[in-house]
Amino acid sequence: MLFAVRMTVHLPPDMDTDVRTATLAAEKEYAQKLQRSGEWLHLWRCAGRYANLSIFDVTDNDRLNDILWGLPLFPYMDVTVTPLARHPSDIRQQRV
Amino acid sequence: MLFAVRMTVHLPPDMDTDVRTATLAAEKEYAQKLQRSGEWLHLWRCAGRYANLSIFDVTDNDRLNDILWGLPLFPYMDVTVTPLARHPSDIRQQRV
Amino acid sequence: MLFAVRMTVHLPPDMDTDVRTATLAAEKEYAQKLQRSGEWLHLWRCAGRYANLSIFDVTDNDRLNDILWGLPLFPYMDVTVTPLARHPSDIRQQRV
Amino acid sequence: MLFAVRMTVHLPPDMDTDVRTATLAAEKEYAQKLQRSGEWLHLWRCAGRYANLSIFDVTDNDRLNDILWGLPLFPYMDVTVTPLARHPSDIRQQRV
Amino acid sequence: MLFAVRMTVHLPPDMDTDVRTATLAAEKEYAQKLQRSGEWLHLWRCAGRYANLSIFDVTDNDRLNDILWGLPLFPYMDVTVTPLARHPSDIRQQRV
Amino acid sequence: MLFAVRMTVHLPPDMDTDVRTATLAAEKEYAQKLQRSGEWLHLWRCAGRYANLSIFDVTDNDRLNDILWGLPLFPYMDVTVTPLARHPSDIRQQRV
Amino acid sequence: MLFAVRMTVHLPPDMDTDVRTATLAAEKEYAQKLQRSGEWLHLWRCAGRYANLSIFDVTDNDRLNDILWGLPLFPYMDVTVTPLARHPSDIRQQRV
Amino acid sequence: MLFAVRMTVHLPPDMDTDVRTATLAAEKEYAQKLQRSGEWLHLWRCAGRYANLSIFDVTDNDRLNDILWGLPLFPYMDVTVTPLARHPSDIRQQRV
Amino acid sequence: MLFAVRMTVHLPPDMDTDVRTATLAAEKEYAQKLQRSGEWLHLWRCAGRYANLSIFDVTDNDRLNDILWGLPLFPYMDVTVTPLARHPSDIRQQRV
Amino acid sequence: MLFAVRMTVHLPPDMDTDVRTATLAAEKEYAQKLQRSGEWLHLWRCAGRYANLSIFDVTDNDRLNDILWGLPLFPYMDVTVTPLARHPSDIRQQRV
Repeated sequence: MLFAVRMTVHLPPDMDTDVRTATLAAEKEYAQKLQRSGEWLHLWRCAGRYANLSIFDVTDNDRLNDILWGLPLFPYMDVTVTPLARHPSDIRQQRV
Repeated sequence: MLFAVRMTVHLPPDMDTDVRTATLAAEKEYAQKLQRSGEWLHLWRCAGRYANLSIFDVTDNDRLNDILWGLPLFPYMDVTVTPLARHPSDIRQQRV
Repeated sequence: MLFAVRMTVHLPPDMDTDVRTATLAAEKEYAQKLQRSGEWLHLWRCAGRYANLSIFDVTDNDRLNDILWGLPLFPYMDVTVTPLARHPSDIRQQRV
Repeated sequence: MLFAVRMTVHLPPDMDTDVRTATLAAEKEYAQKLQRSGEWLHLWRCAGRYANLSIFDVTDNDRLNDILWGLPLFPYMDVTVTPLARHPSDIRQQRV
Repeated sequence: MLFAVRMTVHLPPDMDTDVRTATLAAEKEYAQKLQRSGEWLHLWRCAGRYANLSIFDVTDNDRLNDILWGLPLFPYMDVTVTPLARHPSDIRQQRV
Repeated sequence: MLFAVRMTVHLPPDMDTDVRTATLAAEKEYAQKLQRSGEWLHLWRCAGRYANLSIFDVTDNDRLNDILWGLPLFPYMDVTVTPLARHPSDIRQQRV
Repeated sequence: MLFAVRMTVHLPPDMDTDVRTATLAAEKEYAQKLQRSGEWLHLWRCAGRYANLSIFDVTDNDRLNDILWGLPLFPYMDVTVTPLARHPSDIRQQRV
Repeated sequence: MLFAVRMTVHLPPDMDTDVRTATLAAEKEYAQKLQRSGEWLHLWRCAGRYANLSIFDVTDNDRLNDILWGLPLFPYMDVTVTPLARHPSDIRQQRV
Repeated sequence: MLFAVRMTVHLPPDMDTDVRTATLAAEKEYAQKLQRSGEWLHLWRCAGRYANLSIFDVTDNDRLNDILWGLPLFPYMDVTVTPLARHPSDIRQQRV
Repeated sequence: MLFAVRMTVHLPPDMDTDVRTATLAAEKEYAQKLQRSGEWLHLWRCAGRYANLSIFDVTDNDRLNDILWGLPLFPYMDVTVTPLARHPSDIRQQRV
């Protein structure tokens, strides 16, 4: 089941440098592991903003919630979630 | 070059039935032709709304503009465009 | 899987009376059938507004989308969809 | 009498860990006590956000106000309140 | 139980004059009857706008909903509802 | 002359406890003095929020401004002001 | 007593030409009469928009309300009203 | 003196075809004449929307207002105006 | 050339008292000097808010920008700028 | 390929003076280097605000993203990006 998620990050300008570096590294590792497992289907930077647009393919809402709450940057994020369904004009036969 | 486009459709409730049917058929054909050509990369329904989230892969802004203005439903749409860039945590090596 | 859906209805003041009566009757029958089948879990009026807050229990996003697009009043509605997950402080053991 | 309440939580990233832990534990205990007493009817996580959607069943506005002001997380919350009424298409005969 | 209700009226400029006159007369009679019965406690014009701020004193949400849906101008209104509770600094001892 | 004023309070979570206690006590005394003098006509809590809806009866805009700027909590408030006029359907003959 | 009023006009594109001409002429006459009487203190066009910013000097809210409701273009306007008070840095000694 | 102007066009879907064609032709001629005279400095399409971003170089606010009110599409436009000033990091020595 | 400027001030509650006093005194002196020179034409308090509505009469956008950036309270302000033009119903013959 | 970018800067009032001075100097140098290279085509101050409107001419979205993320003031900015296309009424034959 697909969800579009937009994450906007607000890091405090006075954040401790070590904490910041460690958090960003953990975020990257976390994002890449989920991409490899197939649940984090797409990850794009919104050009010129500290924000991304992501597509998740998960079993249900609970799993999506667990993934997003597990993000190391979650406490610094605004998140919007849009559940996606199959579009009748989509040419691909497989379910979205 | 990738763009996320969100289209929300507002058809007048009193729209002529034939015009409506013809417009929707033309829209579907238009959308499927561009999916086959590779420029309309993804097309998802926003669940429960007359809206979609699409990803386009085009050569430049002018081409994106031409595609969207060519949509048979364009006069009935609100459109938002988000240019996408490669995300540093994206595991795929190819450029977006 | 649960979703909160808020529907706000905008009927044109000059809507044909017969069409209006028939549409409202069809809407009521549709809503009650889905409540009986267990997919439309809750249906509340937002006091003093032509709007409702509903909770749906469906298998996935596609089913939610089909239900909402099938509403006889769908062409007259603004709809917002919020996917729900289990809350860690919820005392009920069954998954939402 | 039913009310839909949406609570969005903003904890300061630099909140003292002990205060945070104690406040969250108190919040959980408070929420569960009110669920057991029957006033906090439903408690759902808005998937992927630090927010919940709750349904309260209380005697009047004053009681709702007392409950919400008593939340240990209240100073960190944005709250919206929607009074609910019985919907004419609701199949349940009991009053909401 | 008190509620603050803000009603904003949008009459179509091309509304039939007789319908308009009859609707406005019915609205006035309806509003005055409810003021005399004590349920419509206050009725103020928002200066310079086709809008009012009203205070209702009703038994519950269902009664408020019935009153507002019964307004002859209801199909032309945007309505916002704010449930009110007793303020700890209010000098009047009687319950709000 | 009547004005509806909505005040929303944002106290910093880390506010000094003594300052907070003293400010809230001063606010209460200030509000009650103005209620007794007749200028602060109504004071209601917006249920479940740190906000109130108030009605002031003052001689002019300057007096309203002085009263609001004198609030001990003024530096922590968002304030909206709506000037009120007599409504043609108001059954009370006295001027508002 | 001064009020800043911003009026934004939305004339239907298909408005009858004669009605339009007559309404605009009446609006101009109305505005100029009130400027001459001293109640409509300033009238500025918001550059490039069908909108104006006006300053009124009236005895009270009721008078302001009567003036604005009397505008021939009132049914086509969005209006916002801001009550003004004397500013402590204003060099003019006379009351605003 | 420079101004950024964003124009968003809303043509009614049922607009008469001849009126539409004539209005668009007049708009184009009007826009090109002002570009040639040097007052309409830049004219860009906002990609994928019926909107443009324009830069005007005019003597004063009155002239800007006259130009925008003279647009054949003006009755169908939402317009926002941003006055521009010289930026201290602009490398061009001439005043904007 | 006239501009309407709305300034909303947000002073941090924990601002150093001396800095605050000095900044406010500098702001007052600055505002009064520009009123005397004729460039700051009107200065009104928005009743009940830490905000003002001002009218400036300046030679061009650059001068307006210099004046506003020079405000001692500028770092604490939200500012909106509306360029004003002569209104066709304004009875005064002099240009605005 | 052209993009309109609006940057709004929020510097913390208590920012260290040396850091502030160094950051602003680096920002100026960065902006001027990119203007000289031809990628930062226009840079205008939004009059009276700590904001600018810029036009960039870059090869693609990735390059735009790199430029904006490289801004020394980027952590303090709100940024909006509008991709621009050739307007059919633009008199210049060269591609935008």
